[in-house]
Parts: sequence; structure tokens; C-alpha cells
Amino acid sequence: MAKKVAVIGVGHSRFGVRSDATIQELAFEAVKDALKDAGIEQKDIDLSVVGTAGTRTYELMPAVPINEYVGLEGKGPIRVEAACATGSAAVYTASTSIVSGQVDVAMVIGVEKMCEVDTATSMAVGGRGGNYLWEFHLFGTSFPAYYALHATAHMARYGTTEEQMAKVAVKAHKYGAMNPYAHFQREITMEKALKSRVITWPLKLYDCCPISDGAAAVILASEDKLKEFRVETPVWVDAIGFSSDTSNICRRADYVGLGATVRAAQMAYKRAKITPQEVDVATVHDCFTIAEIMAYEDLGFCEKGEGGKLLDEGQTEIGGKIPVNVDGGLKSKGHPLGATGCSMVCELTKQLRGEAEKRQVPLKNYVALAHNVGGTGHYAYVTILRR
Amino acid sequence: MAKKVAVIGVGHSRFGVRSDATIQELAFEAVKDALKDAGIEQKDIDLSVVGTAGTRTYELMPAVPINEYVGLEGKGPIRVEAACATGSAAVYTASTSIVSGQVDVAMVIGVEKMCEVDTATSMAVGGRGGNYLWEFHLFGTSFPAYYALHATAHMARYGTTEEQMAKVAVKAHKYGAMNPYAHFQREITMEKALKSRVITWPLKLYDCCPISDGAAAVILASEDKLKEFRVETPVWVDAIGFSSDTSNICRRADYVGLGATVRAAQMAYKRAKITPQEVDVATVHDCFTIAEIMAYEDLGFCEKGEGGKLLDEGQTEIGGKIPVNVDGGLKSKGHPLGATGCSMVCELTKQLRGEAEKRQVPLKNYVALAHNVGGTGHYAYVTILRR
Repeated sequence: MAKKVAVIGVGHSRFGVRSDATIQELAFEAVKDALKDAGIEQKDIDLSVVGTAGTRTYELMPAVPINEYVGLEGKGPIRVEAACATGSAAVYTASTSIVSGQVDVAMVIGVEKMCEVDTATSMAVGGRGGNYLWEFHLFGTSFPAYYALHATAHMARYGTTEEQMAKVAVKAHKYGAMNPYAHFQREITMEKALKSRVITWPLKLYDCCPISDGAAAVILASEDKLKEFRVETPVWVDAIGFSSDTSNICRRADYVGLGATVRAAQMAYKRAKITPQEVDVATVHDCFTIAEIMAYEDLGFCEKGEGGKLLDEGQTEIGGKIPVNVDGGLKSKGHPLGATGCSMVCELTKQLRGEAEKRQVPLKNYVALAHNVGGTGHYAYVTILRR
Repeated sequence: MAKKVAVIGVGHSRFGVRSDATIQELAFEAVKDALKDAGIEQKDIDLSVVGTAGTRTYELMPAVPINEYVGLEGKGPIRVEAACATGSAAVYTASTSIVSGQVDVAMVIGVEKMCEVDTATSMAVGGRGGNYLWEFHLFGTSFPAYYALHATAHMARYGTTEEQMAKVAVKAHKYGAMNPYAHFQREITMEKALKSRVITWPLKLYDCCPISDGAAAVILASEDKLKEFRVETPVWVDAIGFSSDTSNICRRADYVGLGATVRAAQMAYKRAKITPQEVDVATVHDCFTIAEIMAYEDLGFCEKGEGGKLLDEGQTEIGGKIPVNVDGGLKSKGHPLGATGCSMVCELTKQLRGEAEKRQVPLKNYVALAHNVGGTGHYAYVTILRR
């Protein structure tokens, strides 16, 4: 981007079944921490962008009540939605607002209240993230079914195994247990993952991320503002790549990867002038375990078809070539749609600052990557951060 | 804005009860015309931003199916919402994407399918544009009730009359009758307006805009692209001002105007370096007739309280000081939420190009203004266009 944009503050609510809090209150948990982290106040914010996919809460147009509750009344002229990539779309919108010179300081609020409706409704609404008429209504396809298609295709073409998928879950829970914001904070064994009940074969319970409530907030600022705010360790938004794809997955060329991820990653790498091998730490969109394996490949962390091998070698754990989802990922940390993209930026900012405590990865190039998918590859965002 | 952004193509569907078309098909009507108008093809578009408030259609996350249907698959990573100001929020998002250098050419699609649900549901959902818990749920306030509060306050403070409000409706229908895209294309008399049934006193049927389906599309491009595309009469997006306000209108200082409009207008005028008096033609958010009167005042076309007088003098008709809503406005043209902001840019672009035919206003400064409100002043956008 022409003008530079920095992350100057991040905040996070606890993810989980948050029946104790309204959507406004969830947002406030994250906003309050982000303001404290940046050392600024609401009056310093020029623009608030709310990312929430919606449709599961009684506030049908929730941005205004949220902004009012968190003390950003008058500053929030926009809500964005890109299904499960909503949080990244909000980061994109705030970033371009700063680069274009419209504003200097923006609060990005990613928030979702998913447990206000029952699980069946939440799943049904989720299935409608694709194409209602041709897929949801006609075939009844829900999200586990979509990703089961990906899993069986990947198994057939590359010999990926249920064990390799279970390794994604075990890794997620291992790191989730170290993350105080995670929905699930307990380790699991391979046996537990493999013996859990089948949701849509080959995907079992532990191959699926949970339905969670939660919020994450990111404060972005123009370079000019850094001195004024005395920001010690800015993390730069180096590039944002984005793409989208057909709503009918029947029309996709194949099911072993996501075209939108490949295109978004190419755009991001080109703009940031880096190769995938320069990334120190990544968060990828593991809504299902197979999604993490496909992401390794689509993002260029390994060759196509070798995602399972990367897991077998432990290369995506801390100490490996490219640590992935050391915050627990969607699988263990949870996946409140609008919050996820912002949560990724929170985690990577802490990693790049060296503040991730037990989960800290070694930093070499001080480059991090967030990969956020909407729907089943209907949207993809790849955000490169650099310290 | 630092880098210049031009409107290079506009397209419009017919507004009305469009049971003949899906949301995708409505969008295509507008996109097809916009591409033809710009003399470019889908392949020339880098980014598609879909503005749709949603909640009244079976596609809960409609941006991907819409982009696919209109031939912009892979180019649409974002949907925006700002209640009834959604179309302007989409123009804002596309503009900042261009100014920031992320893309060069963007398609903005504003579209809404409102008649897929019955009127009562549509009204109820509309009422939830504010604050569900405190206003809709507790008091049952719907949109006519909100604006009736504004109307009675304005009548009490400034002596504004039911006749003056009716004049807004008569003017809207007069110009709507000349607009082939308008929902209502018939003139009405003062008597008809004043004798129509009371919805929420003092607002009668003809004080309220209809519930309409429709779409409008705007193609924006960076200055660099104009030569390549051989654009003869670019219309520049000179400035976009925006603001928002408390979701609880109980907390507003008064009801005789909208604070968000005042702030958005000040921002826009300052950035465009103009005064309200330099505007040749405007479209304002007349969801109810009283809203147009308040807009005259809040935008600075007259002093506070003198909106009624402006109507009595005919100053907002073609030939007057500041012609307003000569496309029929929301009242007669219709108000498909996501489409409205884009429709305003379509009309003003045609006016600035001198292509508005029977509805053409005389141009002096070649400056036009679009004013789009979300909710009851929850959001406001003021967009200044210049030839």
C-alpha cells in the first residue's frame, strides 16, 4: 500500500458460548483491551468499521448499537460482511480508509453472537453462506458436507489420511490449552479425535470447529500518528490480498484446494514482495481439519498434496519450519465468524511483538501471515504483517 | 481525496415490485447498463463491492451469488451494509479501495429485494434498523413512527405544515412521472396527498416512500484509467463525508434535524472546498416528506426552520435555486435500501453530463450532492460529485 498502516492495538474477548454477554458487551471486551493496548481513548478514533456476518442475532443491523455501546458513537458509518472472512474484510476496509487519507485512526471490531440461536439453525444459516437456491435448498448441503467433499477428494488424489487430519485437531487443542481466550482449553489425544462420532465422513466431531460467540478488535493508524501516540512496536500491514470464487461449488475445477486462497496469496506475496518461505508464523482458516491441510498447500508452505506430510514431520508446530495456528486456530480457539479475521491479526501482532508467552514462535524475518476464508472458498483474504 | 476517482459508468434497473426478477437478476439489469455506459466489459473490473442491507431475501449472504450471476466472479470480496445508506457505504468502500491504490476499476452494485416478504415483515425489519432492545422491542417503534416524531417536532418548533410536507410528495411524483425507472410514474395532486389515509399522524400514505425492489450500479475508476478507456465526460467523486449517531433516538438532542447529516455535510463541504450554495443539483434522503424538509436545512440549502418556505417558493424544483430529487426521490422513484445511494450517484452523473433529458437542471458550477441517510439518522453520507 502507498501510505503505511500500522496495527497499534489489539484486544480480544474470551471465545465460547457467551450467553453471559450481548453482542455489544462482547464487542466492548475487545475494544476496551485494544484501547488499553494502544494507550489511546475513544476520542482518538476517527472511524469504526464493524465486521459481523449477522443473521444469528436479534440485532439485524448491529453496527450502530455496537458502536454506541463501546463509546464510538458517530464514528461508525459502515458494517462489512464477507461470510466467515468478515473480520478480514473489516481490516481491509479500515486499511484502505487510512491509506486513501480519509482517516488516520480506525477501530476494527470483529464480533459475532452465534449461540443466540440453536445449533441446527446456526448450521442451516451457515449452509446458506454459499448459494441458497442451488446448493442449500436443492441439495441441503451444510458446511461439514462441503468440507467432507474436499476431504474425500484430497484423500483420493493425494492419499491424505484421517490420522493426518486428526493431527491438525490435536495440534489445535495443544495450543488452545495455552490460550486463555480459547473456547476449548483442553488437550485431546489422537485416539479421542479418531474415535469421535462421524459428522459427515470422513469428518468427525474433532475435525470440526465449534460454534462460538466472541469478539476481537484491532486499532489501525497511519504512520503519521505513530509519533503522536508514542507507539513503541508498530506492526505494519504490509499487504492484503483478496479474491472470491463461484458460489456454486459444483462449478469449481476441483475440490483439493481453494482457488480463492491461491489467488489471494499470490496477490499478497506480490505486494509484500516476499515468498511463502519468509513467513515466520501463520494463522490459517481451519474451520475443518482438511481446510488447514489445503491451506498449507494453497499458501505455498509446501507442494500441492504434501500438507499431510508437513503435519507428520511436525513442521507446523512451534519450532518447525512454519508454525501454524499456535493460538489454537478456529478448531480450538473457536470461530465467531466476524471475529475470526480480527482475532488472527491480534495473535500475529502479539507474536511479532514477542508477547505471545508460552506460545511464542522464534522470529527470523518478522513476517506473519493471516489466511481467512469466507464460505467454502467463496471469499479469501491473505494479510501479511511485518514488524 | 488524494488520488482522483471518477464515475465512468452508471446503470439502473426499474424500481418497483419486481416479483419478476431474483436479486441476482435485478443486479444484472443495473450492471449490464453500467458496463455499456462505460464502454467496458467485466474483465476490466478489478473489484466488485455489493451494497445490500439484506434480511428480506432468502440469500442471507448474497454478494457471492450476485457477483457470479453478473459475471464478476472472483472480483467481489466484500459486501457492505449501512441500513438505508448502504449504497453510499458501497461507493465509499470502492472509492477508498481505488484511492489507496489497491485497485483501479471498481463496480459498485447497490441492490435490494424487499418485496420477497410481506409489507408487515418488511416494516418490522426496518424498525430494527435502530436499536432492537430499547426501541423496537420495548416501544414497537417503526419507521413512520420515528419520522412522525420528527414531523411533529418540526411543526411545533417552526410552524411547518402538512401542506408543505404534501408539496414534497407532489414534487416527487411530478418528476417520478418523467423517470422511466421510477416505482410510481404518476403525478398526484395536493388534495390526493392531503386526503390520503393517516399512517402515523401527521404522516399520511403519500408522506411515506414505498417498499421497492431494485438495483443501481456505478463504475468507478482511477484517473490513470480514463485515457485507456477513452472516457469522454468523467464525473469526479470530489468528496465523501460520513457520520453516524446514537442508536437510541431518545438520546438525541432534538428531533428537528439529523446530527449525522449536519456532520457528514460539513465533512464533505470542507473536503470539496465548496459551500452549499455552489451545488447545482441534489438528491436527498426523502424516505418521508419531513425528511426532505429537514435535509434542506441540515445540508445548508436554507436556514434551520425554513425548509417549508423553500418549498412554498418552489426553489427546489427545476429552475429554482437548488433543484432537489428531480428523479422522483425515494418517495416516487422508490427506496430499495442498498440501491438508493447508488441510484443517487446514477442520477447526478446523468445530470452533470447533461443527459437527464426532460429532468435536466441548468448547470452553473457543475457540482452535485447526494445525501443518503441510514436508519433515522443512524448513518449519513454526503457525496459531492463534480464534472
